[in-house]
Amino acid sequence: MEKIRTIVVNRSAYADNDAEASLLRSYLKDRGVFLINVMSSPGAGKTSTLIKLINALKSSYRIGVLEADIDSDVDAISVSKETNVKSIQLQTSGMCHLDAGMSKTGLDEIDIKDLDIVFIENVGNLVCPAEFDTGAHLDVVILSIPEGDDKPLKYPLIFEKCDLVIINKIDTLEYFDFDFRKCEEMIKYRNPKSTIIRISALTGEGIDKIKNYLKNKIDEWRKS
Amino acid sequence: MEKIRTIVVNRSAYADNDAEASLLRSYLKDRGVFLINVMSSPGAGKTSTLIKLINALKSSYRIGVLEADIDSDVDAISVSKETNVKSIQLQTSGMCHLDAGMSKTGLDEIDIKDLDIVFIENVGNLVCPAEFDTGAHLDVVILSIPEGDDKPLKYPLIFEKCDLVIINKIDTLEYFDFDFRKCEEMIKYRNPKSTIIRISALTGEGIDKIKNYLKNKIDEWRKS
Repeated sequence: MEKIRTIVVNRSAYADNDAEASLLRSYLKDRGVFLINVMSSPGAGKTSTLIKLINALKSSYRIGVLEADIDSDVDAISVSKETNVKSIQLQTSGMCHLDAGMSKTGLDEIDIKDLDIVFIENVGNLVCPAEFDTGAHLDVVILSIPEGDDKPLKYPLIFEKCDLVIINKIDTLEYFDFDFRKCEEMIKYRNPKSTIIRISALTGEGIDKIKNYLKNKIDEWRKS
Repeated sequence: MEKIRTIVVNRSAYADNDAEASLLRSYLKDRGVFLINVMSSPGAGKTSTLIKLINALKSSYRIGVLEADIDSDVDAISVSKETNVKSIQLQTSGMCHLDAGMSKTGLDEIDIKDLDIVFIENVGNLVCPAEFDTGAHLDVVILSIPEGDDKPLKYPLIFEKCDLVIINKIDTLEYFDFDFRKCEEMIKYRNPKSTIIRISALTGEGIDKIKNYLKNKIDEWRKS
């Protein structure tokens, strides 16, 4: 296991974030690096989903991970230990989200020249990360069963912006009152083009579906 | 059930927020109204905890509730229906937190003159609400078992600032890997003066402990 590097990132110029994000997307396209931004509430299972997913993808792609957190490096350590891929911790020093400048800083540090995919694990927050384009080619939100089926009703923007909605912890379904139909209808109302995949990061159920979805997305993107 | 009023609140002047919050605390003290700010991640159980707690307290206190949400009024409707106390929805129109000016707007609308306690249910977010003093006399954070025991490590500020940490969904403990000792040690590290109470908003276990804690806090505050 490589030693974890921790980078302190600060807010970039907000006015230019959309422009910076577009530039970053093109820059990465020219270099063949597909950037995936993963968002969720605290504790919805971003890290455990990423670990299972990276282990499923790493024979086909060279992968790196930028782990954003306010004030710890435990996720970067877990990802590095469980997957053996390159992982860097971005400490936001209290900031509630990443922006494009912050992801660029992380990408420069991780050295993308031998990578095909970089995952960003954003700060655990359903509100602010959705407001700031990180420069990713794909935005993903993870919602977990214990949080309840009404989250797409209450946190509209993140569900409007995400290409993929992962519903995690389906292994706990019998202990919670969660109405898939109601939840998925509201997700589709927020964004009719979104894809919804049900998984359990604990048992691994559904991880193959995300893997196939991402392979198709990356193939399309390479041809675009 | 009273019809739910929905008030759209906007960000107040940030530079003056601490001063505004102090003024609001004094204003409420003069009027005998104890303001309690309840924060958590999305889906940790703020609304269901408040419903159980208000029903336990309402024979002793006259209670009002300000329900903050980005874009829905479902929580104010639930609280009003399940408790019959006065409830107002504050829609933040995308904002990730409440500040003192926004709580004052809500308090003016709910009409505090016949109330002893007002609960604020803040926006579901472990980051930003902790940065903005709402003018409350007591700050509470709810952490739930499915979110994991590492949240006090990853979201320092909210645990530093809260007087009371409620650990909810203890009825689901057998389905999740949650280490109380590790979690509670980290909470005490963040704030040695905090009180920790374990509850299940589903079964009602522990609600009497919060009730007794609040009664003592309100008695002390009235004498202060």
